[in-house]
Amino acid sequence: MKTEKLEYRDSDVTLRGFLAFDDQKSGRRPGVLVMPEAFGLGAQAKRRAERLAELGYVALAGDPYGDGLQLNDLQEAIKRATALFADPSKSRARARAALDKLASLPQVDPNRLASIGYCMGGTLSLELARDGSPLKGIVSFHGGLQTQRPAAAGQVKAKILVCTGADDPFVPVAQVAALADEMTKAKADWQVISYAGTVHSFTNPEADKIGAAGISYNKSADERSWKSMTSFFEEIFAAT
Amino acid sequence: MKTEKLEYRDSDVTLRGFLAFDDQKSGRRPGVLVMPEAFGLGAQAKRRAERLAELGYVALAGDPYGDGLQLNDLQEAIKRATALFADPSKSRARARAALDKLASLPQVDPNRLASIGYCMGGTLSLELARDGSPLKGIVSFHGGLQTQRPAAAGQVKAKILVCTGADDPFVPVAQVAALADEMTKAKADWQVISYAGTVHSFTNPEADKIGAAGISYNKSADERSWKSMTSFFEEIFAAT
Repeated sequence: MKTEKLEYRDSDVTLRGFLAFDDQKSGRRPGVLVMPEAFGLGAQAKRRAERLAELGYVALAGDPYGDGLQLNDLQEAIKRATALFADPSKSRARARAALDKLASLPQVDPNRLASIGYCMGGTLSLELARDGSPLKGIVSFHGGLQTQRPAAAGQVKAKILVCTGADDPFVPVAQVAALADEMTKAKADWQVISYAGTVHSFTNPEADKIGAAGISYNKSADERSWKSMTSFFEEIFAAT
Repeated sequence: MKTEKLEYRDSDVTLRGFLAFDDQKSGRRPGVLVMPEAFGLGAQAKRRAERLAELGYVALAGDPYGDGLQLNDLQEAIKRATALFADPSKSRARARAALDKLASLPQVDPNRLASIGYCMGGTLSLELARDGSPLKGIVSFHGGLQTQRPAAAGQVKAKILVCTGADDPFVPVAQVAALADEMTKAKADWQVISYAGTVHSFTNPEADKIGAAGISYNKSADERSWKSMTSFFEEIFAAT
């Protein structure tokens, strides 16, 4: 497996992503974008990109803020994330820049793309879907589901899989219901999986170090949601 | 693969089940109870039992009413189902009789049991879980989630997977939320998967013949929920 830093641009911002793929394989393969938590591109998203590469995909972990910025402080992360989402055109362009870079790679089949994301990255993946990006599917892991710009009917090309903790204080039941309503009206293909006893950041083994209420790793929900994602990929990437 | 009729009893009622297993295999295997829709034990549940046998499990499709009664009329089915659930002790005993028969078979590992069910059979599987039956897990496919006797804390041994249609008029969102609340209070391990654009009986290819609003087959939700069930079984039946 090969991993490398990969630079790309969103207008005047230089983004520093992380690419992982199996360099023993030839031919074009499905490409999976991995958008990270609000802390920026760190170990969690990079490790997931590596695991996707082990599954045979070309995975690009995207840089949401530019210059590979990583944050340690939760309040600072929330502040940066809020700024990024202030203008939906800009947050969507930021994610789309990463997707376009991935699609342009010679080892990637541009007709078989997906985006997954964690926390803020899940929201960015959903925003790509709402924007009508050329994706076969998106997976949100404990992502925020709200938007300033709901999907219009027929606009969503991506199939949607939302994996969410039943007790996530950042993604309450009403938010899940609103997404279901939005995506049903938009005639999108969506699924929601809700996990008992599970809160925010359930896929991140380091989550408990943050020391915040409602943020905690959950091994069972992590493993179950990853397995659901791999099944979902088998479905959406099946040769047609 | 071998299939055979299997009689068992619930006090004075003779029940006529359908057993499927791979007779080329030796040794004790996980046993899966399959409880049918309100129409009684018919082709749908039998076919699922055969598919479970193909996966290596010993599957018993249970007879909910006695004497293998099958109904064709929806109103008659609702009447019989309502009568069965009038006394939760009796409906639970009816399902438990099938589970006990399955557990007693020489090819079944009584420490690795699950119950799945369709529509009313999903409800019966949940009732077994609420009753503290010795199950590793249960899966409800478009099953009713209400009960007269909610689970008490610590009582549920089975892990619970609920697969439900987002537009199922018989299992509305409020009913799903009530189940989540009940099972969270009971400290059960539960998951709910909700499928977009999906109504009641989504696993039954014959559902549209019933000609009732809110009852229809959905190939995508059928295939996705079956795959989720097989992943769930891999998890709960893993040698420990």
